[in-house]
Amino acid sequence: MISKKKKFVPAWSDEAPPAGSYRSVFKLGAPYRFKHPSDAWYEMLKEQLGMNDEDFQHKHHEGRRPVAVKQKPRLSTVQIQRFVDIVGRENVAVDDFSRVRFSYGKTVEETLELRYGHVRHVADAVVHPRDKHDVRRIIGYCHEQKIPVYGYGGGSSVTLGIRPVHGGIVLVLSTHMNRVLEVNEKNQTARVQPGCMGPAYEEALNHAAARFGTRFNYTGGHFPQSFEISTVGGWVVTLGAGQASTYYGDIYDLVVSQEYVTPAGTFTTPDFPAAAIGPRVNDIMKGSEGAFGILVEVILKIFRHLPQNRRCFAFMFADWQAAADAGREISQGQFGLPAVFRISDADETEIGLKLYRFNDTILDRAISWMGYKPGRRCLCLATAEGQRAFTRNVKKQIRKICRRHGALPLTGIPVRRWEKTRYSEPLMRDDLQDYGIIIDTLETAVTWDNFHRLHEGVRTYIKARPHTICMAHASHFYPQGTNLYFIFIMHADDLQEYQQFQRVIFDKILQYGGSLSHHHGIGKMMAPWLEKQLGREQLAVLQALKRHFDPHNIMNPGALLAPGEAPSHESPAGKNS
Amino acid sequence: MISKKKKFVPAWSDEAPPAGSYRSVFKLGAPYRFKHPSDAWYEMLKEQLGMNDEDFQHKHHEGRRPVAVKQKPRLSTVQIQRFVDIVGRENVAVDDFSRVRFSYGKTVEETLELRYGHVRHVADAVVHPRDKHDVRRIIGYCHEQKIPVYGYGGGSSVTLGIRPVHGGIVLVLSTHMNRVLEVNEKNQTARVQPGCMGPAYEEALNHAAARFGTRFNYTGGHFPQSFEISTVGGWVVTLGAGQASTYYGDIYDLVVSQEYVTPAGTFTTPDFPAAAIGPRVNDIMKGSEGAFGILVEVILKIFRHLPQNRRCFAFMFADWQAAADAGREISQGQFGLPAVFRISDADETEIGLKLYRFNDTILDRAISWMGYKPGRRCLCLATAEGQRAFTRNVKKQIRKICRRHGALPLTGIPVRRWEKTRYSEPLMRDDLQDYGIIIDTLETAVTWDNFHRLHEGVRTYIKARPHTICMAHASHFYPQGTNLYFIFIMHADDLQEYQQFQRVIFDKILQYGGSLSHHHGIGKMMAPWLEKQLGREQLAVLQALKRHFDPHNIMNPGALLAPGEAPSHESPAGKNS
Repeated sequence: MISKKKKFVPAWSDEAPPAGSYRSVFKLGAPYRFKHPSDAWYEMLKEQLGMNDEDFQHKHHEGRRPVAVKQKPRLSTVQIQRFVDIVGRENVAVDDFSRVRFSYGKTVEETLELRYGHVRHVADAVVHPRDKHDVRRIIGYCHEQKIPVYGYGGGSSVTLGIRPVHGGIVLVLSTHMNRVLEVNEKNQTARVQPGCMGPAYEEALNHAAARFGTRFNYTGGHFPQSFEISTVGGWVVTLGAGQASTYYGDIYDLVVSQEYVTPAGTFTTPDFPAAAIGPRVNDIMKGSEGAFGILVEVILKIFRHLPQNRRCFAFMFADWQAAADAGREISQGQFGLPAVFRISDADETEIGLKLYRFNDTILDRAISWMGYKPGRRCLCLATAEGQRAFTRNVKKQIRKICRRHGALPLTGIPVRRWEKTRYSEPLMRDDLQDYGIIIDTLETAVTWDNFHRLHEGVRTYIKARPHTICMAHASHFYPQGTNLYFIFIMHADDLQEYQQFQRVIFDKILQYGGSLSHHHGIGKMMAPWLEKQLGREQLAVLQALKRHFDPHNIMNPGALLAPGEAPSHESPAGKNS
Repeated sequence: MISKKKKFVPAWSDEAPPAGSYRSVFKLGAPYRFKHPSDAWYEMLKEQLGMNDEDFQHKHHEGRRPVAVKQKPRLSTVQIQRFVDIVGRENVAVDDFSRVRFSYGKTVEETLELRYGHVRHVADAVVHPRDKHDVRRIIGYCHEQKIPVYGYGGGSSVTLGIRPVHGGIVLVLSTHMNRVLEVNEKNQTARVQPGCMGPAYEEALNHAAARFGTRFNYTGGHFPQSFEISTVGGWVVTLGAGQASTYYGDIYDLVVSQEYVTPAGTFTTPDFPAAAIGPRVNDIMKGSEGAFGILVEVILKIFRHLPQNRRCFAFMFADWQAAADAGREISQGQFGLPAVFRISDADETEIGLKLYRFNDTILDRAISWMGYKPGRRCLCLATAEGQRAFTRNVKKQIRKICRRHGALPLTGIPVRRWEKTRYSEPLMRDDLQDYGIIIDTLETAVTWDNFHRLHEGVRTYIKARPHTICMAHASHFYPQGTNLYFIFIMHADDLQEYQQFQRVIFDKILQYGGSLSHHHGIGKMMAPWLEKQLGREQLAVLQALKRHFDPHNIMNPGALLAPGEAPSHESPAGKNS
């Protein structure tokens, strides 16, 4: 049917989704932002997924229909009216579109549901609190009435973090509670409302001198891939790690103090730079995923903004072992840490080079000729940030170590390319799903002595599925270990089949000694595996905290395996402690 | 009476305390180790404390009598026998001396009690578990029988951390459970038993190549003042911070994973380098002061041992404001952090110079002439550790910042002098107490914007007491703040008066916005202030954890304000939440 003469290009979508449609809920990024696969990527996809041009003739399940909800609100009109009394009529919504829009995150599972028009779990009402006092009144009322409460920041959860499994209300924190309240230059901290989006936060800090009258400008140092579509509060409650966390620390390191509204009361944790006054409630609240209460204000560490000292550099390693050895040595080198440090395994390296249209260039052939062969070679991207002589030395020491491990320096160009697209790459997901291709990711943390075993174990399982792409990188480095971020791509329109596949990956991660999550939390997606990860005794500690903060189980029920809570997913087959 | 011709020197004690005596319990350091005040110090003491040679004619309350306990053991012979069955006869003691020896820490309060021969709180039996399985059996039995259990490491607590307020048993962890079990070079960690003493731990790491067959030698990076008389486990459960913590981190940062035996079960926390799987039980257990369970094994971060790259440097600042400003700028400078960084306020500077016999030398007069006047000038000591070029740059940047703040570089000699005596200085306490002089310390953490207010507020209160010395230093630096370590010296033989004085200092620390403790915990001494510090809601979180781990309140009752537990001290006058 298709002419063999003319090169076929799929009709990647370039239209903003219809207003009020399912597609407008699951679309990644702003309505008019798109990122299409390159020709080389398209060819690679067909080859590796066992597809051909025919498969890209027609889109399926684009989700262009208007959102329609079958589930009737379970809240009474009296209850709805009470929320209206608290926040004002304009800040309560019960229409179908609002209910769905603010009940859905960005998991593959959720996007497929929306594409099929099958709304599985939806809140009964959407409430936009104006300030923390509103939140306090709302939580007080919900506690009294036993109405479930789910927090919504940027809606970027890929772990079913939002999913309102019992109905109730969604509290949207990004509508009004989205400001940087204060920059305290002396303490080098910023006081922020939870709904502040990543770019707004960083922008305010980068211009602190003008906006807050500080002497210097600052950076938050936190740049997760979801940066453009996630909130400061979301980072905190899911324990996010930004792409420069190797230097700046992850959000666990960055949070100095928090104010929470919980059914068991409202409190602000102390902002001491350190203390020895028993277990730290401040740390207990981090990563609590809305299961204990709502974060209404947070004080974060900030850093002098020194873009002029930034150094970018890249290397090609002959293989994965060499790249990992160098990464470990750098992390343990005691000369300070790089900001970004990222090693891609052989598969990701090749696919990445295709994405950047590098492969089959003269340079590619030259590198290959020098011994950095496709299928084995591994790309490494790095940056150094901080004071000028510090970044110079970090770069110098890293280059020395990488060379000792046989790496070829590649200048800073690959890093700058990566930086240009690092936030927009996920946008490709919508294009791929239009043709029944699922792209998804899972991340895990692992000690150095277990690194290769985990990488190989999980990869082997994923690649055992025919026509399935698996690539991985490590991108957050610690002296004691690193993370592994797996990306897998497959042709699989069937949600059930996909979920079954995904569940076994969780099992494999645990089996090979990885953490269920390195950053962005476990949500309701991985909560059923938590006991297997932590053991009965440690899960019981979290349950005791849950009982304390939220005796009626109204705060994001299903998250962190609330006591007596039936998980929204089936439990994993085998449990042990 | 005393000849004015011949200079009088008090007869500082140079004898080992009699075996079995009270003195042998409270004496700091090994029996034959002493550190006497210098002549200049002696003159300074007399002048500032309003004393004269007469006051140093006779020693009082030396505690040379044999220990005798009035309290009868409350444990039955059946119960004692059960402990014998578990650990063997040689590992259970019920004699008076053992009971007192392992029931006492090193607070002023405890040493005075021992000097008077007034044993206030004492355990009924002392048990030396051989391994973690013994601990498990013991805790199981104590839970069943509701027998209180107190952990004992090095006995260096200065917060009534041990004090067995309800009798029961003391578990001595340093007798058998004192080994470095493993050095994992790949993960750069050491697995250690809790009773391992500081020097044994550091020694094992410094010789890891020979002892564990590693490629490199390592350091633990943790050097609290109590280093020689404290244990790894003690550091962890009291949240210790070593003198090089500005670079290496405090124990909260250093602990990767822990194994605990609690009445609610035994568990080992995961050793992932990072994770986003909810609140971290590993962190919840740190600083739990034995109130949740007994730490039986811990995995700590270690660091390449690079003494050849170490740099020492010192400065004199014209005043406290300049020293603090420089300290803050250094902490926020993003060129890496110094290992030791320590600024002494004007009083501590002068007293320190006296201790080192520096004052009134030609050099002293020269420095004074240059504008660094006694009574205003502040000494700063620093070291840098790590990779060679890194330490060179840290030193260079610090020197630049200090100079900008008008400081005079003093070479590395003062640092080396300080290092020689840093562990032995506390030994002077016994000499002073022999003549009714109390020397005590309190430490607090504070944000930069509150630093001077707290320093001035606490100092003003202490110095308002006639003939009382108050000196302070900041010695753990963070971008967000620092600690303040207050040392006060007074002539006060009366325990009650002293306690009253101390209690108001706690109030003042809270009033001026400091933490109750920066390192080494709150013990039973400060636990009554915890609600005032944290507020009712956050105290309730700790109480919920306590109830979970230890429903019968047998684990170090009185620590961390167990629910329903009457504090062993009177509560502070005013409480708020």
